[in-house]
Parts: sequence; structure tokens; C-alpha cells
Amino acid sequence: MNIYDIAKEAGVSIATVSRVMNDSPKVSEKTKKKVQEIIEQAEYTPNIFAQGLGLNTMHTIGVLVPRISDAYMSSAVAFLEDDLNERGYGCILGCSGFSQAGKEAHVSMMLSKHIDALILVGSTYAGTGASEEETDYIRKAAAKTPVFIINGLVEGENVYCTASNDYQAAYDVTTGLIQNGRRSILFLTDSHSYSANQKRKGYEAALAYGNIPVDQALQLMVKNDIYKARDLLLSQKGISFDSVFATDDGLAVGAVKYAGETGRKIPEDIEIVGYNNSSLCICSNPELTSVDNCVSKVCEDTVERLIKVLDQQEPVSNQTIVGCSIAYRDTTSF
Amino acid sequence: MNIYDIAKEAGVSIATVSRVMNDSPKVSEKTKKKVQEIIEQAEYTPNIFAQGLGLNTMHTIGVLVPRISDAYMSSAVAFLEDDLNERGYGCILGCSGFSQAGKEAHVSMMLSKHIDALILVGSTYAGTGASEEETDYIRKAAAKTPVFIINGLVEGENVYCTASNDYQAAYDVTTGLIQNGRRSILFLTDSHSYSANQKRKGYEAALAYGNIPVDQALQLMVKNDIYKARDLLLSQKGISFDSVFATDDGLAVGAVKYAGETGRKIPEDIEIVGYNNSSLCICSNPELTSVDNCVSKVCEDTVERLIKVLDQQEPVSNQTIVGCSIAYRDTTSF
Repeated sequence: MNIYDIAKEAGVSIATVSRVMNDSPKVSEKTKKKVQEIIEQAEYTPNIFAQGLGLNTMHTIGVLVPRISDAYMSSAVAFLEDDLNERGYGCILGCSGFSQAGKEAHVSMMLSKHIDALILVGSTYAGTGASEEETDYIRKAAAKTPVFIINGLVEGENVYCTASNDYQAAYDVTTGLIQNGRRSILFLTDSHSYSANQKRKGYEAALAYGNIPVDQALQLMVKNDIYKARDLLLSQKGISFDSVFATDDGLAVGAVKYAGETGRKIPEDIEIVGYNNSSLCICSNPELTSVDNCVSKVCEDTVERLIKVLDQQEPVSNQTIVGCSIAYRDTTSF
Repeated sequence: MNIYDIAKEAGVSIATVSRVMNDSPKVSEKTKKKVQEIIEQAEYTPNIFAQGLGLNTMHTIGVLVPRISDAYMSSAVAFLEDDLNERGYGCILGCSGFSQAGKEAHVSMMLSKHIDALILVGSTYAGTGASEEETDYIRKAAAKTPVFIINGLVEGENVYCTASNDYQAAYDVTTGLIQNGRRSILFLTDSHSYSANQKRKGYEAALAYGNIPVDQALQLMVKNDIYKARDLLLSQKGISFDSVFATDDGLAVGAVKYAGETGRKIPEDIEIVGYNNSSLCICSNPELTSVDNCVSKVCEDTVERLIKVLDQQEPVSNQTIVGCSIAYRDTTSF
């Protein structure tokens, strides 16, 4: 008896059986009980279940991230796992690091594991845009299995990309700060990745639209670490700034600490905006305004398109852009 | 040419080659360049590299976690990946959820992937202790491959456990609060897992040693969510407390928010201690005192013993306990 039989006998969808297995709160107690009873009656063994779920040789999706301890990536993986499990797919995950060799070796490893599709999480897989060779390994992999990229755009047959609209979000945040009368908006980032560059471009476009010259001295780069970001701002003697737009919440919290140490009142003397809308935003005091890049929506979109590609139901577009929103809190006067 | 050949030709260890692949800052620029040149000269292909690294059919370790979005688990996975890669092993990861059926199905799935050993991260795999049957799936798996459990104790042949000493840490924290004159110490938790129970026992033992009766009304359970923890404390009308010991930093930050809303000064009016020493501690204002359960040490110990078991070098003990430390910050007057 496999998951399909159990679903049939219980008169529910495979997704519901999977939800019961994963203790999802979305299932009513009544349905949960019914499904569990059928599983028990069938003297269900996990081995058969795993086969039914397709975890052995089919219905397995490979998911690669560069670094799993990153909050954005671990939440993306959690959403993907959830969505894929609900559709009857299992996942195997790998962590590739950020080097070209590491990414290529791990993609090869994934392809050897009999996966039905490969999902690459994060703009690092799309390279820096310096040369097309950087992404050849993706097109090569796509000759064997469909490849889905989250938050990076790569052109190629059988390559499907979903990215959040970081350019627009950065443009909107910067415009909001300008409308609040800010003129010296510091751009704080930790990366030269595709998405970091999109954010920078949106920031610069908004400045241009507001007739504010782009000042390179107001674009700073630092490791994503609260204390390091704080110390970098404390050490800036030559420049003055009335607001900070950070490409990650950790950096923005560094700016909050900086304001605390220098006695600058938030948001009166200095406004601060973070990115990712992570748990740090609520932990911070004052609580942090942040761009919500809707990782759940991006993952949902990816899984929906993946299912369509595997089911060969209908043509699927190669690129989708998902809009971001802004979570307004106490570090801005928006 | 595989990783062993590259290491030999470069005159460095396999670990160093792996570090270069993963862009580790621990390698000097000179060594990095040398290794990279040899890789390039060898017309290195990632596929061969993956085989050399053992990522295809051998030298692969399976790692299971219940939920990857959890900060403790994602950092444990990151440490394990790092340590294993440095030893020339690749990883495949899976997320099992917390249900018994999910855990069992995912262990079966992992065993089907030709792994050399299985690592289970988190005390959920050790069950609640209600019955021995809960952990039969682990002993069954251990008949096929060595099983390592992080932060849970399960008895069985070929089963190796490493746990942090949560009992002692909870005892020490509670004793510290008592020595500061605290008498009404609220215990705030989100779980009935093995480790949560160890923390509770340590807390109760310290109270007993301090001649303070255990008051069940001072033991509260809530979802691990900053706002939910804050609201639960705000809603407590019948009890009074002069300190909070939380089993997770998120819960402790909820207590910090509660103090802010009720005008209680930290640490004068109320002392607060968290657990896990996560990035939330530094983000919080005031910064949070927290138990550091030394996840990196626990992971390192696990990998060391795993290598010994696989190499059959020497007898390996089935259980190790790793001590925790306390990171003192501004929410206590320790």
C-alpha cells in the first residue's frame, strides 16, 4: 500500500496524506485521524511509504544552496520542501559553497542521484554576469534534467528562473526616503551578486529620478555581521548620511546599533531600512522596516512551474518576476 | 585526476584542496593559487572531481533534520557540511518533519541513497522517552549503516550519540539567578523534546538545591515566536516573576519585549536568559545573555567519531556529552 492507495481509501488528495505525515496544522483533526487509521490498518511500513512517495528512485527533486546557515536560504529550502512534499515529491539537498568549482561539482553530484529536476537557490548560481562561461554548467545540466533557479536569471533551454523584483523594491524604498526629505542615503551591502547589483541599480535610479547625484562614498561594503556593520559606520569620518538602505537585515541592525552609540534618534535623525524581513526585524529595538522579498511566493511559483514542466501539461515561461513588498515598522517615518 | 591526485601534486592535504574548492578563508592566497592552477592544468572536470570527492557512490554522508528553517538546525548542518567536506566527504540532506511517519520514511529514503553513515540532528529523533518502540527505526537503520545522533540519546549497536549538557547548563543558569536574589524564576519553553526536558530537570534541580519550591504555574509553554511569547507573558495575571529562563532565544526576546511594554527595567527589575546564543542575542536591545550549547563543538565531535568508526581505527564510545557555556550580556547582572 503506497501513498496513492492511502489517499484513495481515505477519499482525500495525496497532498492531504502528505500533510498528515508532516503534522501540518492545515488538516482537520477528523481527517488526520481517518488517514492515520488507514495507515495503521495497512500495517504501513516506512519503506513502502518512501517508495510510494517516490523517495527511492523517482519523484525526487535536488535542491542546492550555497550556504544553509543563511536565513534567506534556509527559509527558501523550508518552503520548497513543504510545497514539494505536498505535491508528492521528496527532496535531497546539498550545500555547494560559493566557488565556481564547488557549484559545478555539486551540480554533478546531484545529477548522479537520479533526480527529476534540480532547483538552485540564490543568485550566486547565476554568476556575476562577467562572462557567459560562468553559467555553462547550468545549461549542461539542463540537457539532462530541468533546472530551476531562484533569484537569478540564466538563459538556456530547459532552464526556468524565478526572481524577486529587487530592482523595483530598491527603487521604491529609496524614493520613499527621498520623499521623507532624505538626501544622503547610504547604501550598505555585503555582496556583488546578481541580486545585490539589482538593488544597487534600483537605488541609483531612484537617486537619479530625484535629481540627487550618485556618490560612490555613500556605497559601502562589509561582511554580513551586526558588529562589523556597526563598526564600519562608526569609522566613517569623511561622510555624513541621514539614512541607511541595507541589502540585508543583519547589516541594517548594525546601523541601528550605530545610531544607538552615536545618540542619533531613529527615525528622526536617521532612517534605516533592511532587506529580507527576517526575524531580526522584530527582535530589533526599534523594530526594523524591511523589504519583504516574498520568498514563500517565489518558492511557490517555482514549484508550480516545476510540476507543469514535469507533467508536460502546458508551455511554461522561462522567466518570472515576483514583486516584493515593504514591511513598515519603526525605523522609518514612511 | 581526482582530489587525491591534486592534493599530492600540490603537496597539500585533501582537506586543503577541499578548502580551496569551498573558498575557505583559512587557506593562504599562495596555496590557493597553486591548487587552482593544478586543477586548471589538469583540465579538471567537475564530474571527475565529484567522483574523486566521493560524491557519486561513496564517501557520502546522509544528514537528516526535522526542520531546516530552525536556526539551531541550520547552523548544525552548516558545521557538519564544513567538517565533512574538509575530510573529503560529501553530504546529502533531508528534512523529515517531526512526525514519527515522516522521520521513518526519510530514514528509509536516506538508506536507499548509498550513504556511508547517517547523522540525525536534533532530539526529536530520540523520541519523547515514552516507549522504546519510538526509536526502533534507528536501531533498524543502524543494522545497515552507522547512525549518529546529535543532541539525543538512543541506545543501540552502531548508534553513536553526542549531546550537549543541557541539564547542567540549565542548572547553572538557574543557580546564577538564585544567587542574584531571584526567587520567582519563570521557565519558558516551546517543546517537550528530550533536550527541553533536560533543561526543565536542570532548572528544577537548581530550585530544589536553593530550597525554592517548584511552582508549576511558573512553567509556561508557547510557540517559538517573539510576539506570541510576549503576549503570553502580558496575559499572565495570577502570577508574578522576577526573572525568565527561556529554552530558546526567540522566547527570551519575547520576554524582553514584555519588559519593555510593562516598563520593567532589565536587569534591575527582571533578568532574562535565552538559549542557543543565536544572532537574535546581539540584535536584541538590551543584548541577551544566552546559553551557548556549542553546536560547533558537538558537530566536530560527531564528525571525528564518524571518521573513526568508518576507518575502524579504534573503539569509539557510544555516548559523549559536550559541555555548554554561558554568553553573558546585558539582560542579567551575572
